[in-house]
Parts: sequence; structure tokens; C-alpha cells
Amino acid sequence: MPGPTGARPRVVVVGGGFAGINAVKGLRDAPVDVTLVDRRNFHLFQPLTYQVATGALSPGEIAYPLRALFHAAPNVQVLLGDVSGFDLDARQVMLAPTDGAATAERVPYDLLVVAAGSAYSYFGHDEWADSAPEVKSLESALHARSRILEAFEHAEATDDPERRRELLTFVVVGGGPTGVEMAGQIGELARDTLRKDFRAIDPRHARILLVEATDRLLTSFPPSLSRRAAGALEQLGVTPLLDRMVVGVDGDGVDLRAPDGTIERVAAETVIWAAGVRASPLATALGTATGAAVDGAGRLTVNADLTLPGHPEVFAAGDMVRIRDEHGDQVTVLPGVAPVAIQQGKYLAKAITRRVRDGRSAGPFKYLDKGNLATIGRRRAVADLHVARLSGTLAWITWLIVHLYYLIGFQNRLLVLLRWLYSFLTRGRGARLITGAEYEGRD
Amino acid sequence: MPGPTGARPRVVVVGGGFAGINAVKGLRDAPVDVTLVDRRNFHLFQPLTYQVATGALSPGEIAYPLRALFHAAPNVQVLLGDVSGFDLDARQVMLAPTDGAATAERVPYDLLVVAAGSAYSYFGHDEWADSAPEVKSLESALHARSRILEAFEHAEATDDPERRRELLTFVVVGGGPTGVEMAGQIGELARDTLRKDFRAIDPRHARILLVEATDRLLTSFPPSLSRRAAGALEQLGVTPLLDRMVVGVDGDGVDLRAPDGTIERVAAETVIWAAGVRASPLATALGTATGAAVDGAGRLTVNADLTLPGHPEVFAAGDMVRIRDEHGDQVTVLPGVAPVAIQQGKYLAKAITRRVRDGRSAGPFKYLDKGNLATIGRRRAVADLHVARLSGTLAWITWLIVHLYYLIGFQNRLLVLLRWLYSFLTRGRGARLITGAEYEGRD
Repeated sequence: MPGPTGARPRVVVVGGGFAGINAVKGLRDAPVDVTLVDRRNFHLFQPLTYQVATGALSPGEIAYPLRALFHAAPNVQVLLGDVSGFDLDARQVMLAPTDGAATAERVPYDLLVVAAGSAYSYFGHDEWADSAPEVKSLESALHARSRILEAFEHAEATDDPERRRELLTFVVVGGGPTGVEMAGQIGELARDTLRKDFRAIDPRHARILLVEATDRLLTSFPPSLSRRAAGALEQLGVTPLLDRMVVGVDGDGVDLRAPDGTIERVAAETVIWAAGVRASPLATALGTATGAAVDGAGRLTVNADLTLPGHPEVFAAGDMVRIRDEHGDQVTVLPGVAPVAIQQGKYLAKAITRRVRDGRSAGPFKYLDKGNLATIGRRRAVADLHVARLSGTLAWITWLIVHLYYLIGFQNRLLVLLRWLYSFLTRGRGARLITGAEYEGRD
Repeated sequence: MPGPTGARPRVVVVGGGFAGINAVKGLRDAPVDVTLVDRRNFHLFQPLTYQVATGALSPGEIAYPLRALFHAAPNVQVLLGDVSGFDLDARQVMLAPTDGAATAERVPYDLLVVAAGSAYSYFGHDEWADSAPEVKSLESALHARSRILEAFEHAEATDDPERRRELLTFVVVGGGPTGVEMAGQIGELARDTLRKDFRAIDPRHARILLVEATDRLLTSFPPSLSRRAAGALEQLGVTPLLDRMVVGVDGDGVDLRAPDGTIERVAAETVIWAAGVRASPLATALGTATGAAVDGAGRLTVNADLTLPGHPEVFAAGDMVRIRDEHGDQVTVLPGVAPVAIQQGKYLAKAITRRVRDGRSAGPFKYLDKGNLATIGRRRAVADLHVARLSGTLAWITWLIVHLYYLIGFQNRLLVLLRWLYSFLTRGRGARLITGAEYEGRD
């Protein structure tokens, strides 16, 4: 399938997440020219971003420069750019104007892969974002880290008991893996890491509330493991609040609605958001351009081979899509986890290589679910491996091994292992720094 | 010397830099209650901050939480606060109002140590700071890192050769150790780390200009080593511009005045500032309050025992002071380097302990100058050790050992060693991430 110029087909991959980089990796030796477009210059290992938010890890340990990933692949070009839309007829990706180019740039493609991921949605209340940082993006995680640590600092400084209680109350919204992991980390921070650090306050008295709208945590796990997770969290001083809907967030706390409709106000200085993701606007853009369905969470419905209906040259993958099976009668939403994106990226590389080599199209994408992991704290985790359901130390070790294995880059893996080893032995956290724009140029 | 309440004397230390933390460390077993006040919650290993600015190190590797340093010392309290001034008569340190307290807080002391350090001054042109970040504070170093990496990214994206040349021109202002180290690091970044990373540009063609107002680099070193440093820099593609005065800085470049008065315009996207430090405003505050002399760089003149004239209960140290010798006829400005601050901090701990134990006052502070080190790049450095003047690999190894030895915290030392080892073997830089406030909440 040669390009219009008769040259090698040009594959443009939008998004340097798990789906994108695995697609590009698989195309390094294919007879194509690949352009990877991302607005960040690094791949972020999102499953561990929450550990940056609690000072367990540094940004450099979970982020890896995209150029460094592919500098040895001459057929791969990395382009730092913000994709503003697509011209499917002209087969061009449109970039928002950058410093480099005055006018919007256009990147032509023969085959297009869009894997722009998703971001946390605030149930349509974007204004909540200021009061309740999420821990999906690196900057927001660093912001959350500063907020959490500052709360303890200010509690140490104040004499007002009520204010102190508010400062030492931490609300995590969302009982999924990220929320559970986040609440567990704050619990360990308060009980272990900071235990001896203060003189006026006892960090162990911190209130940590984990708010979940449904009747159990980790709904993607079997109920037995949800119960074990809740128990492990309680041991860390975390109080799960089930069947509670967040109806208000501001600088002073949250409003929670109970099943009976009563609204409870919780005064809290620190609120962390880990509920409800929304697909990238680029999913909607593709839907509008092609008439493909887009669901309430902004996910684009693609064919079983991840192509866009009516556009076999356009693929979409990752947690911005739903998949319609080959018979066209059932639509599946796969969990928004790294393994799905990784498998889809590898599948796309194979599908594209086959299409380019001999025009054959690939069969439907099949997700091999190897299981489900969530960690709560040191030697506390749950693992649903189908063959076995683990909890406690064994599940935790499984979690460690899996995450170290998938951590990109030999160096990062070593650094993270070293930090974790240190943290495990000393219960310390090396990266608990309060940093932020407000300090720009000071010191 | 009991406090007014008859309790143990209260020692307040302002500033968690090298002088401050060494003073507090030395007082852990003294019969005093110590309060360490800093507006940041971490000690920053400033001699390596420039390596964060070039992606060689992550913030967490050169910053260490103050509370973690002293959590085992029950007589030490760490207070996060911004000192706004002093009430020397009432013997109180005044803090700017924080979230914790509505009104300005006051911290009473019996003995006071002020070591608030210094910041880069822009020759009175604070507006230059926006266009030319410095690499002394952590945030500014991260800002500089993003600016440097973005310049390469935008150069890859643009087709305009003139714009590309501007994007690939880097100006470092100041030929002291930091400027030399910074220029050398950018040279290595362009020639080694990024060499294979781009397709449209060749990073090795980057112009790196090191601007120095005097007639040689590293004026604190003997001329022979200045020449060697200049030679090593040129091997890395850095062009030293001597006898050039910066008379203008804006977003598009710098204006340089030659000795003959002619002004040359250099178009450059990236300008890094490493020239001219100014002492903390707290030095002037103490000077105004006591009539003690303050020099043009804002440094406070203290007695030979680092006490404030007329205030034996107030000590000042670090690069915010000049020292008048015991005969009162000579004033010395010691170099603003870590060893001076470390020795002064240890001296203060001894002096205060002695004063508290048996009222004796200490002799004058004596600085033991062990020598002078500056690194230019891998296996390129200069060392003036009095006994010997080294350059090249031997000086570089000396520099490595000294800096690893002084890096606070077992964990950080290991992490930095690991990163450096990795960088040395692969010429890679793990932490070259473009991050910043503009990405807040995005992913």
C-alpha cells in the first residue's frame, strides 16, 4: 500500500501512551515511515502516577522521554505537538499552532492511529478541579503531593483545633483502583512516613475518607476481594464511605449525598479526585467527522479490528474507544487499564504491517485478560488472577513484579526498585517535596 | 543562659540551607530547644541544581525533606514559614501570615541564627528573569529544563532556517562555576544525549555561548585552570564570550556590550542566568534594624564570631554575610560555596553550645579552604586543591567523590550514583522531561 508519492506508507500515531508506543515499537522494522505525535515529550507510566502524588516516587522515575525510546529507529520520527483535529478526506492530522510554526500545521498520513487516552471528568463540574486535583497527569499529581504535605505542615502551625481537624482530613473520591491505592498511600504516609516528623500534631490522627458511589470498592474485582481491600484500608486508618455521591466540592470540603437523599458536609482541606474518566475530545472529533457513535463518557465506537467505520485507514485504540464485535450486534467497553492498551498497540502494529505488506486485513482484536491487580500498601494488595484470587503479601509481591516488569527503561526500573526497597526498609519517602509554580524564581 | 521562662534556651534557625542544617545538626544533643524555619519543606543540594536543569538528575535526588533530617531529634522542631522580619528588642522572628494562622505569627528566641542565603540578581533588571531563568532554585531549574528541551523540539518542528538557528542558540550568562557547568551540560546534551533523537535537525549544530564580563572564566581559580576550562568547553561546542557585558535580555535574545562600547545583538530562544547573586532581603532587614553595614550585594557585615554588632544573641551566616575580623579593620567576603556555609554552621553549633553550657564565647570563625572544584562535563573538570591543580579525568573523579560524599541522605546518594553511572555509560539523561504549570490538569 504505497503512499501517494509512491514512497513508503506514512503512519501517523497520535498519543504516546501505552497503546501508541506499543504500536510504534511494533512498526520499527515495518516498511513504513512512522510519526509519533504527542503534546508531551515523555511516556508516562500512569499506573504509578499516584505514587508521585504521595512522594514515594519522583517524576523522572515514571516518565520516559519518547525520543529516547525511539532514537535508534530511523523510520520513527517523534513530533511534539497538540493535535487539534483531523481532515479525514485530505488524510491529514491538524496540529494547533506552536512556537515553531505560525499557522496550524498539517501532518499527512496514509494510515492513522489515534490513541489519545482519557482524562478525569468532574461529573461536568470542571470548577471542582481546582479544589480536588487528580493523580493521572504528572503536574496534577505533583500538585496533589504539595497539597497533601502542606496540609500536615499547616496543621502543625495552627493552634485552632477545628482548623487542625479540617487540615488533617483527607477525602479521596472514587473507590476504583486509583482511589484505593491513593487512600492507602495517604494512610501509610500519615501512619509510617510522617509519624515522627511533627511535634505539635500526631499525623496518625489524620482522617482519611474514601468516597465511593456504589455499594463496594473495586467493583471490577470479585466482592470477596473488595471486602479484603476495605479491611486492609481500615487497618491503615482509611474509612471507606460507600453509597455516597459527591454533589459538591470546594476549597473547604465536600458535600456527600447518602442513599436516603440526605446531604452531609465533610470539612476537608485536601480532596483528591479519582472518579469518572472521560475520553479525549479527539474521540468525539472522529465521531462527529464520521458519524461513528460516541457514548456518554465520550468513547468512540470502533470496529472489531479497531478501524473507524467507513475509514479502514484510521485506527483508534486505548481507553478512548468502545469496540463493536464483528457481527455488529454487541458493543464492549474494555477496562481502561494498561494491559488493554498494550495489547491493542501490539495488535495494531501487526495489523498495519500485514496490511502494508500484502494488503490482507487482520482479524478482530481479542483481549487476553491476565487478571486484575490493585495495591493498598506495603504487603497489602488484591489480585484477581482467574486461576487464583490473592490478597496480602503474595498479591503485593505479584503487583511489585508486574509493575517493575512493565516499567519502561532499564534505568527507571532500577531507580524505582531502589526507592521501593528503601521505602520498604525505612518506611520513608524520599520525594516528599512541596514544590510548585508559586515558588518560581524564589530562593 | 536559661530562657526567660527558666526553660531551656530557645534557638531559632532561619534557613534550611547548608549553614542552617549544619547548625541544627550540631545542636541535636545540646541543652537547647531548636526551631528551624524555612519556607520550603526540603533542603536543596544547590551545587547540583544545574544538573536538574539539564535532565541529568530529578528534583527528588538533590532535595531532602527537612523533617526527615531531624525527625529523630526530639529537641528540634521544623516550621514551614516565610520569615518577614525580626523584632530584635522583643527577641521574636516574624512570619508572614500563612494558611495556618490568620495574623502574622511570632516565634520567640533566646538565640537566633539567620542563614537565609542569596538569590540571583539580574543587575537590577528583574524583568529579565522571565526570559532568562536561573538554576539556583528547584522550580527555576525545572523551568530552564523545559525551555532548553522545548527549544530543540521547536527547532525540529519548524522549517524556517533563521528561526531554527535562533531556537538552537543557547546563551549562558556568567562565567563562574555554575555558568561553566551549565554551558558544559548543554554542550553534552546537544552532542551526546540528543544526538540520535531528532530527524530534521542535528542537535550537534547547536550554538552555545558562555558570556562573561571579565577577561577569563572561573575568576576564583588560577588563570591556568581558567584556560583549561575554556579549552574543555570548546571541545563540547561551547563558545566563551569574554569581556562581554549583558545590557539587555528579552524573549528573542540578548544584547552584549563589547569593551569598545559596541553593542552586539545575539538572537537566542534560550537564555540561562548564572551571574551576580544578591543576599536575602533579611540581611538588609537586620542591617537596618541594627545599623550594621550592608554592602552593594546586600550582604550583612557581622563580627568575627558571626554575631551581629551589638547583638551577641543574633548570629548570621552563609553567603548573606561579610565578616569583619576581630581587630575590626578588615572585612572579608568568603566565596558563596557550600563548604563555607557548612563550616559556619558547624562553628555556630559549637559556639552556641559553649555559650549555653558555660557562658563562654567562641573565638573567631576560621574558614579552612580545602580547594575549589568545577566540572565541565564527563571526565572534564578543574580542581584547585592548593597541594595540586588538577584538570581532566582526575579532577572530574575528585569532583564526583566530593559531591557524592556531601549529598545528604543515603538514599539520594545511591540514586544519584546510579543515575550518573547510567549517564556515563549510555550518555543518556533519564530526567529530560518537559513539565510545567501550563500542563496542569492535562494529560
